[in-house]
Amino acid sequence: MALSPAPRTGVHDEISALRRVMVHAPGPELERLTPDTREELLFDEVLWRDRAQAQHAEFTSLLRDEGVEVLELAVLLADLVAEPALREEILRRALDPAVLGDIAVQDLHGALAQLSPRHLVDVLIGGITVGELRALGVSLRSIALHGAPPEHLVLDPLPNHLFTRDPSAWIGDVVSVSAMRHPARRRESLHLEMIYRHHPQFAGEAAPRRLVGRDGAGAATVEGGDVMMLSSRVLAVGMSERTSAVGVERLAADLLADGSVERVVAIALPHRRSMMHLDTVTTVVDEESMLRFGPLEPLETFEIERAGERLLSRARPADEMDAVLARGLGVPSLRVLTPPLDAYAAAREQWDDGCNVLALAPGRVIAYERAAATNEYLRGEGVEVLEFAGDELGRGRGGPRCMSCPVARD
Amino acid sequence: MALSPAPRTGVHDEISALRRVMVHAPGPELERLTPDTREELLFDEVLWRDRAQAQHAEFTSLLRDEGVEVLELAVLLADLVAEPALREEILRRALDPAVLGDIAVQDLHGALAQLSPRHLVDVLIGGITVGELRALGVSLRSIALHGAPPEHLVLDPLPNHLFTRDPSAWIGDVVSVSAMRHPARRRESLHLEMIYRHHPQFAGEAAPRRLVGRDGAGAATVEGGDVMMLSSRVLAVGMSERTSAVGVERLAADLLADGSVERVVAIALPHRRSMMHLDTVTTVVDEESMLRFGPLEPLETFEIERAGERLLSRARPADEMDAVLARGLGVPSLRVLTPPLDAYAAAREQWDDGCNVLALAPGRVIAYERAAATNEYLRGEGVEVLEFAGDELGRGRGGPRCMSCPVARD
Amino acid sequence: MALSPAPRTGVHDEISALRRVMVHAPGPELERLTPDTREELLFDEVLWRDRAQAQHAEFTSLLRDEGVEVLELAVLLADLVAEPALREEILRRALDPAVLGDIAVQDLHGALAQLSPRHLVDVLIGGITVGELRALGVSLRSIALHGAPPEHLVLDPLPNHLFTRDPSAWIGDVVSVSAMRHPARRRESLHLEMIYRHHPQFAGEAAPRRLVGRDGAGAATVEGGDVMMLSSRVLAVGMSERTSAVGVERLAADLLADGSVERVVAIALPHRRSMMHLDTVTTVVDEESMLRFGPLEPLETFEIERAGERLLSRARPADEMDAVLARGLGVPSLRVLTPPLDAYAAAREQWDDGCNVLALAPGRVIAYERAAATNEYLRGEGVEVLEFAGDELGRGRGGPRCMSCPVARD
Amino acid sequence: MALSPAPRTGVHDEISALRRVMVHAPGPELERLTPDTREELLFDEVLWRDRAQAQHAEFTSLLRDEGVEVLELAVLLADLVAEPALREEILRRALDPAVLGDIAVQDLHGALAQLSPRHLVDVLIGGITVGELRALGVSLRSIALHGAPPEHLVLDPLPNHLFTRDPSAWIGDVVSVSAMRHPARRRESLHLEMIYRHHPQFAGEAAPRRLVGRDGAGAATVEGGDVMMLSSRVLAVGMSERTSAVGVERLAADLLADGSVERVVAIALPHRRSMMHLDTVTTVVDEESMLRFGPLEPLETFEIERAGERLLSRARPADEMDAVLARGLGVPSLRVLTPPLDAYAAAREQWDDGCNVLALAPGRVIAYERAAATNEYLRGEGVEVLEFAGDELGRGRGGPRCMSCPVARD
Repeated sequence: MALSPAPRTGVHDEISALRRVMVHAPGPELERLTPDTREELLFDEVLWRDRAQAQHAEFTSLLRDEGVEVLELAVLLADLVAEPALREEILRRALDPAVLGDIAVQDLHGALAQLSPRHLVDVLIGGITVGELRALGVSLRSIALHGAPPEHLVLDPLPNHLFTRDPSAWIGDVVSVSAMRHPARRRESLHLEMIYRHHPQFAGEAAPRRLVGRDGAGAATVEGGDVMMLSSRVLAVGMSERTSAVGVERLAADLLADGSVERVVAIALPHRRSMMHLDTVTTVVDEESMLRFGPLEPLETFEIERAGERLLSRARPADEMDAVLARGLGVPSLRVLTPPLDAYAAAREQWDDGCNVLALAPGRVIAYERAAATNEYLRGEGVEVLEFAGDELGRGRGGPRCMSCPVARD
Repeated sequence: MALSPAPRTGVHDEISALRRVMVHAPGPELERLTPDTREELLFDEVLWRDRAQAQHAEFTSLLRDEGVEVLELAVLLADLVAEPALREEILRRALDPAVLGDIAVQDLHGALAQLSPRHLVDVLIGGITVGELRALGVSLRSIALHGAPPEHLVLDPLPNHLFTRDPSAWIGDVVSVSAMRHPARRRESLHLEMIYRHHPQFAGEAAPRRLVGRDGAGAATVEGGDVMMLSSRVLAVGMSERTSAVGVERLAADLLADGSVERVVAIALPHRRSMMHLDTVTTVVDEESMLRFGPLEPLETFEIERAGERLLSRARPADEMDAVLARGLGVPSLRVLTPPLDAYAAAREQWDDGCNVLALAPGRVIAYERAAATNEYLRGEGVEVLEFAGDELGRGRGGPRCMSCPVARD
Repeated sequence: MALSPAPRTGVHDEISALRRVMVHAPGPELERLTPDTREELLFDEVLWRDRAQAQHAEFTSLLRDEGVEVLELAVLLADLVAEPALREEILRRALDPAVLGDIAVQDLHGALAQLSPRHLVDVLIGGITVGELRALGVSLRSIALHGAPPEHLVLDPLPNHLFTRDPSAWIGDVVSVSAMRHPARRRESLHLEMIYRHHPQFAGEAAPRRLVGRDGAGAATVEGGDVMMLSSRVLAVGMSERTSAVGVERLAADLLADGSVERVVAIALPHRRSMMHLDTVTTVVDEESMLRFGPLEPLETFEIERAGERLLSRARPADEMDAVLARGLGVPSLRVLTPPLDAYAAAREQWDDGCNVLALAPGRVIAYERAAATNEYLRGEGVEVLEFAGDELGRGRGGPRCMSCPVARD
Repeated sequence: MALSPAPRTGVHDEISALRRVMVHAPGPELERLTPDTREELLFDEVLWRDRAQAQHAEFTSLLRDEGVEVLELAVLLADLVAEPALREEILRRALDPAVLGDIAVQDLHGALAQLSPRHLVDVLIGGITVGELRALGVSLRSIALHGAPPEHLVLDPLPNHLFTRDPSAWIGDVVSVSAMRHPARRRESLHLEMIYRHHPQFAGEAAPRRLVGRDGAGAATVEGGDVMMLSSRVLAVGMSERTSAVGVERLAADLLADGSVERVVAIALPHRRSMMHLDTVTTVVDEESMLRFGPLEPLETFEIERAGERLLSRARPADEMDAVLARGLGVPSLRVLTPPLDAYAAAREQWDDGCNVLALAPGRVIAYERAAATNEYLRGEGVEVLEFAGDELGRGRGGPRCMSCPVARD
């Protein structure tokens, strides 16, 4: 791991020039998606690996062409597991006896510890089956695995790692390590936490000032797709299918305690798969403008601040949503950008991540080509839109913002 | 409807040279598929209309290039509704007071009766919303629709019409009009029944000798994807998520009564969405060969015949499945074609309709390009495979066989 | 069936002196309720047969003490099946090939036709298993039953026959034969229809003027617990978990066509198991008073009348519910009787059928003893309340009104 | 808490003379059971509080008449919360910010800390609503509770505390504090842990040697109803709807590490609500006999022991189940007691907890009166059966063993 020193990191808003981003090119974990596993793995559809990889390559090449430094999560993770002590720590935490049972952990640990870094990363992200373990010479005595067929997954794959936005989020120079809603994604956060704590790319100047978030969070979940830096002092968090009100209160308590932010704005989203995260219905495109899914009704919001030793929350009625957001962005009024579509077309284009754009700079965004009507509308409103074909990637229910974890913006 | 006389019709096996086929190019009904409607409409995914239509056009052009006469369902239906008496009968049956309520039927009937044939077909297949009805000047007094928003569908769309295999099936010169499993597909059968009864393309020599199947079938469902002519005397029917054992007994009783076939072979499929119909796991490719999904376990079968006034069924244990199928095909032994794939790859390729090929002639089939490993394997086994890009069509969970209703084979 | 001539029948309101009622004492069908069958049979709990029968006997003896003639459904049915032609018709319709399959019907018919009337009624109401059929010498060749264990129910039991209110309802001198919501109850309506058509107790003067309702009603369901005669000219019908808006429109069309009533009032209940039928949340106790579940929010209603050849429906906002009901009862204003209970106590007492009282005469009702707070409240309001222990019967989610089908009121 | 010194504690088998037992008489928590809350609270039915309390009093009086010392959980808990430091610890852990959110905890803590011990225990077990908090003068600012109606439960009630068998279990002189399967029961374990750690009744000689079990157990759940001391050296644990294989491995690792037992026998139960715990299908009645639900198929078992530093598990095929149990009991062969009932009667009687007897001494058990056929059979086999009416208690799906936590047996 002899790497050059990394630049300063930190993300203080949603739109300043993007400098560094972490992504994950889909790998062997996609091969685990089948009609029978997709529901537990949170996919509606089985992805075509070749097409998904080609489209992701187009995405990262677009980013690089724009001068963004692109960090590949799997590469960083391989660096870590090349170090014996870190490998041991990752294995110890990835092989959780409360998930797998003591006997399975006893069975697996030795075998996985012998793998090459590259192979081990494939297992950590792609999972491993009973048959593959047997091929490695492992004899399984676990009760929980008794009678399992060769294709049974002992360690589950992490196909959602594609969406690097979710398992962590930069809030200024603090990193929130996510307490993920679904068990299928919990090991993603471990990878991110280990990278931020131990990888040279995040050492020295590039290190986060502080990590917040905790294990065993119970119902207190927060996912990165709901986390949105309105400005360097105000954080918006969606309360969604994935992020709970309780999770927002915990995060707010953490961030307000040391003044990491001044205010947290909680937004009460409808709990529907199609609105899984805040960034599936709205994203910031410039200093004063947000792209928004048309049929979204006005939503209740809450402004949370700290007063002395206590947290203070103020409920804002739905008709004040735009004013609350404007106050967060620090502008007199919010410009809402909503493509003029009927209810069916809007629902279809939102499902295809039309609203989930990634800002490269104020007024300059990356979007999926398939969201043609939205993109055309944005251009008419003066927004520069860079497109790439992402219809296969979009089957995983995420767009350019979901697939990127900004690590440094100007 | 001044049309030239149609050729002789009838389908006596799965592989003789295909002469005439009915298809349905996807139309405005696809625009109704949204995250919220897809489950009720039986789709896992929202389809991209442009891409689906282009792929379907490729499919039908491939068929025409092979000399197959292609009938478009929507065109035939438009011919029918151009005749006032037939239009009235279709409207009376499509607007069912037991589904919509007496007041809604009273409200809708007059308005729809005024539409042009083309527009009416768009409504019959694409459905119609509260808002669209209001735009037609309809004042809705139905209790069932009270308070419904403009985007509420009063008449549901039929996006599954794409799969013309299912709502009817030719069994020799008899047509079985399907009692569909799900309410979302029941109106499809009405369209097929009206076409077979009244369209000049199915008059005279081209008319089915008899229609079987009935309304109000209750649990006695049969869908065309489960119906497979092994030979002119033996019919196989899958008992699946969609076709019930009770439905098979009813159909067998009908067909055996007048000797339309001599034997019905019922095949007990696992009830899983991924094995929705028999033709999603196996199809006939030549006189003695069937392509089959690898991980499919051997299945119990039942041979049903008629003895005097009674039906006689014989249960055959799972290990006799291939012998039962061979007996049905009239060959000494069955050649099972199974691509050598691991469990995950096989499940993924089956999901992508790798097994759902359409035979143009013995040993010559149409398949989706995406099922690359299956197609390569078939070629190695001496089968000619014509490919076309169908990954978007396949999102609807159906391949070339599902999208075609053969009306005449040599 | 040499029976004495029956008195005039007909039910023109909810409260006039009750003269004749049909009930069903729970029998062997209760023994079929187990943890595994209860959900499909629509019971939350497994009933204790002895205790349920003793409580039901207390109920009917209370009715007889009040001078009410009590008809036992099972006795009437046994009279019918003693007649060969009626036995044949009942068997033909109870053994439906669209439910059981042609082969099972072929197998069962002969065996059941040989049973004594009493035994056959036990089978029609209590169902029959594979093992019991084998004990009768039946050899089962049905595909649908292949491999079924001895305890598998071939003909399902009808434990809900206990609630004679539901499968039919007298509306003046017309009988509505119910299109039941759940398959588990559909054969109940057949029994009632046969009794009304063919039993001497309902012949001559005692015969209904007309039967309405139809087979194959699809979504157009109506159950008797939702049917309430506000006055001889106005019928209220709840739109509930069991009775659909479409069903109400069909019933209204039937009744208004020949002036059987002048107006139908449809009441939009929340769709919850705890409010399964209208009479689980409100019942009429005298000329101007209705007992009502406290936490019930005001509900939207619809007044349906006939204008020339068309049905006319008028939506009434929720705050007019009491005025609509008063208009139906023919009184200047409605007196709503609601026990003063907190939300938890009210929900518990409603669940225990506290609101489901049966009026013997204006201001005189039968109620379950367990609803102590409600009964005490009613007495304080001047209502006479006759109590009996019904906590075991109430496990089936029905009270005195549910367990009675009034056939004649003064 | 000036209490007399407690006797020696410990439970080394299922049948030695019972000396001391912990129970919980149902209290105000039962009033929270309604049609809407029962599912989340794991009850099929709404209990009648008066009848349940009277039956529970009959149960404890029967125990006292037999010379058993009966500890009331609520009394012990009230002793604890009378001590300020313990009250603070209980409140801190019962009011979990990961469940309630930081703001709700901030809101509630002060108010609850002011309550009298008795009132606080009522809240800890009976829960508290928004309306009740407001009546205590609490102003709620929690986001998670925004807009909640007065009847909304902020702290959930614990009606399952009735079943003191589950949240902890004595294994010799060790106590296993349960990691409960459902969130609705997790706070029960906290109460038990606090009592064992801090109550004088469990101090000195009466203290458990060690507590095992941990917070944040994830999927590693174990409930006491699955824990059965076959002998002082062998523990049986059911793997059920509630106790996971992973949980059994964790518990075995803990107990085998210091030789608390020599062997753990894991029994693979079907996962069905009707077989929620091992003791719902079988219980030990004397040195060599187990009462068993008739239709229970033979089950796979696993014998887990420790070999050096590793856990060793041996899978035993289903047909060896009785031999494995006999080996655990330390007898040459097991005597299985199964009442001769048909499948329906057996399922009904098991549902009514016929198998769930509590041994007072070898061959002397307490049972529910309602399980008449089972009790009669047991007597015929020479077992003394003490009965009491428990049909209302049984609605909670538990019998005498479920309602008792033995703390000392000879």
